[in-house]
Amino acid sequence: MSTPLEYIQARQDEFKEQLFQLLRIPSISADAKYKKDVHRAAEFVADQLKHIGLDNVSVEKTDGHPIVLGDHLHAGPDKPTILIYGHYDVQPPDPLEKWETPPFEPTVRDGKIYARGASDDKGQMFTHIKAIESFLKSGTELPANIKFIIEGEEEIGSPSLVPFLADNKERLKCDMVLVSDTAMFAKDTPSITYGLRGLMYIEVEVTGPNRDLHSGVYGGGVQNPANALCEMIVKMKDENGVIQIPGFYDRVRPLSELEREAYAKLPFDQDAYNRELKIEEAFGEKGYSTLERVSGRPSLDVNGIWGGYLGEGAKTVLPSRANAKISARLVPDQDPKEIFRLMEKYLHEIKPPGVEIQVTEHHGGHPVLVDLAFYGLKAAAKAFKDVYGKEALFAREGGSIPIVADFAKTLNATTILMGFGLNSDSIHSPNEHFHLKDFERGMKTSARFFELL
Amino acid sequence: MSTPLEYIQARQDEFKEQLFQLLRIPSISADAKYKKDVHRAAEFVADQLKHIGLDNVSVEKTDGHPIVLGDHLHAGPDKPTILIYGHYDVQPPDPLEKWETPPFEPTVRDGKIYARGASDDKGQMFTHIKAIESFLKSGTELPANIKFIIEGEEEIGSPSLVPFLADNKERLKCDMVLVSDTAMFAKDTPSITYGLRGLMYIEVEVTGPNRDLHSGVYGGGVQNPANALCEMIVKMKDENGVIQIPGFYDRVRPLSELEREAYAKLPFDQDAYNRELKIEEAFGEKGYSTLERVSGRPSLDVNGIWGGYLGEGAKTVLPSRANAKISARLVPDQDPKEIFRLMEKYLHEIKPPGVEIQVTEHHGGHPVLVDLAFYGLKAAAKAFKDVYGKEALFAREGGSIPIVADFAKTLNATTILMGFGLNSDSIHSPNEHFHLKDFERGMKTSARFFELL
Repeated sequence: MSTPLEYIQARQDEFKEQLFQLLRIPSISADAKYKKDVHRAAEFVADQLKHIGLDNVSVEKTDGHPIVLGDHLHAGPDKPTILIYGHYDVQPPDPLEKWETPPFEPTVRDGKIYARGASDDKGQMFTHIKAIESFLKSGTELPANIKFIIEGEEEIGSPSLVPFLADNKERLKCDMVLVSDTAMFAKDTPSITYGLRGLMYIEVEVTGPNRDLHSGVYGGGVQNPANALCEMIVKMKDENGVIQIPGFYDRVRPLSELEREAYAKLPFDQDAYNRELKIEEAFGEKGYSTLERVSGRPSLDVNGIWGGYLGEGAKTVLPSRANAKISARLVPDQDPKEIFRLMEKYLHEIKPPGVEIQVTEHHGGHPVLVDLAFYGLKAAAKAFKDVYGKEALFAREGGSIPIVADFAKTLNATTILMGFGLNSDSIHSPNEHFHLKDFERGMKTSARFFELL
Repeated sequence: MSTPLEYIQARQDEFKEQLFQLLRIPSISADAKYKKDVHRAAEFVADQLKHIGLDNVSVEKTDGHPIVLGDHLHAGPDKPTILIYGHYDVQPPDPLEKWETPPFEPTVRDGKIYARGASDDKGQMFTHIKAIESFLKSGTELPANIKFIIEGEEEIGSPSLVPFLADNKERLKCDMVLVSDTAMFAKDTPSITYGLRGLMYIEVEVTGPNRDLHSGVYGGGVQNPANALCEMIVKMKDENGVIQIPGFYDRVRPLSELEREAYAKLPFDQDAYNRELKIEEAFGEKGYSTLERVSGRPSLDVNGIWGGYLGEGAKTVLPSRANAKISARLVPDQDPKEIFRLMEKYLHEIKPPGVEIQVTEHHGGHPVLVDLAFYGLKAAAKAFKDVYGKEALFAREGGSIPIVADFAKTLNATTILMGFGLNSDSIHSPNEHFHLKDFERGMKTSARFFELL
């Protein structure tokens, strides 16, 4: 009889080979040509879940790609129930010519597994399957009830998952959700993401004269919609990067002294950041560090702008309209719908004379913040520390993972984001990879997490 | 034997059909794809000049599109020599979907010829060819020496014409230049343009990070080039429409009391103007009337702006760069080169932190003002009165015809701007048109002008 960690330690090659089998399946959810492969990957995951001894394993049909379920609910009602989420679909591998080895022929080089999906998310998802196996196959009692939900549409926005959650609330009922689809803060630096920003996204159309005009004949006579649009965009922020929409910050939870101290401890090199982006200096809301600004504070950006003549050379046109796509990243407790209303109202207030505007809302998402005192988070931190030999850092991320908000809303469950990948893993890019060492430590951290619960 | 005016009257349908042939040629000078068509239009014009009986007709090669010449110098040295200028190239027709009938399939609706170039300038240029034909083919002695110069690069700033003028000073020597590339003040209101605004046109590229970034991961951390561009555009004018570039107004000749009185006498209905453009209110430099602002005062407009994601839906990108085309209309005695330097300097001064900018100059043009006592102007006024039965008004125009300044500089000749088009002709816009009645009166006025000289 071995412990789960010994079991994992002894089977590195076997687990790697199993992961390779999954990585060889080009389960590209965005491309209809690969539909069969996507289904093949779902079947492979289901076989794995059966193989390790889960109950009720099923491949659930959806309007899109299937969702794989399985559970092991023998720990008793006094033990927590953990829903483990992952996805078996991958991003398209283009541009193919930039791959050193083919994306669906996993290869180990310099201690890294190179393949599409190695890190995002097949490799990370696999760590939890193997962690559960390490209990069930080593004869160790699993000290938690677990449920798996592995989808095949994460890379295309999880269109089937949200209705599936709503339709299967009881079956998926849990105390927390465990997700490994984020990155560690840095190499060998275990970290837990406890916050995600939300999103509010609008499109503004500014309409002036009923047709494009000759700028010589009309220039100086009428409001130019492109100039007017610029004026409105500029009025959204002051020169210190502070957003000017009345009420915008009302629900923003201020960063506590403790949080700001934690931010200050995160390894961050502003010069390296600037060098990497080839910018002379960073810019953002005054009074906050770059890390705070990109994850702990809301932001507002033009995502697209267009109007008038975009071709070569000079056309002396005074455009009839101008458009912009503008989005705000939100932090708790901002509400995307409320921010949209505030923004729309403000835009109408600052609209210059002589033009009309129309504001449309695109999809948004709620920000998420997990209470640092949550026992699940503490167990995750301890598991990291035991395996990596280092205190886990707690960090907030600037992007959104919309399903995390859905788990909260639909299942009323808190999500633990336990990342084993690295931001440098080239996910979504050629030569995606996953450190073998992190694959191993991931399995062990996951197993340790379940021991600690 | 008929008089020139009778000759014109009798051949309306024939002349219209000939113009249609020219309008069917998509001679878009700005787009290299249409090079062959541009040349085809030049050949068509040369054939017309030969057909009406001109001497020395030639299609002159240039570095760009050809220049068509032809002359008739039999009036004797005691008669004035008139250089007739026009252009056979046209603006691009985009947006195509807004045309009710295709831009290069001329159609008559409600007494108007609809086609790209119908008014600007194929239709207007044609009036003079037909006027000269009415003398030569009716056997009437032409009481002036005439030379034609018809170029194919007006819509791209006449880059070949200026050196061509300098290289052919003797051949193009003349007492005045006759140009019909302007508009009448209003419907049935003959008018002579005695002033034109100049032009300074730039392109600004604002560069931020070295690649498009994920707006979640980086939003709030770096300067957004699209936001930065808007900020610079807004700083060019204050909210009263007053241009903020230091030194911009230094050489502006102020409107005299007399001129402002003349402006006030011009027929102008602000409500009708607003209604026609479907705007709620006009906007421009405070302290001046709309007419003054669009012709007697300089202006500054965004002609095009673009950056980031321009497609459907929402893409959360923080763009790596943003671009704008911006131009100023100038009045005497502003100098385009000097204004460019002032503008470039100012842009670098107001550039926000965290981005780089590059400013490029497109072609510009000098503003022009003609002495109201010039005998050519008086003959033109009389010709208008005889054909339209109304006194011609004298007005300044907001657009630029840069070559008018070049004619003055290189050939030392004053230009008579005899417009037959209307500002409502949608030149440079979809559904450009030219009133058939003005096509007819244009030919007659031109013929009468030559009789009177």
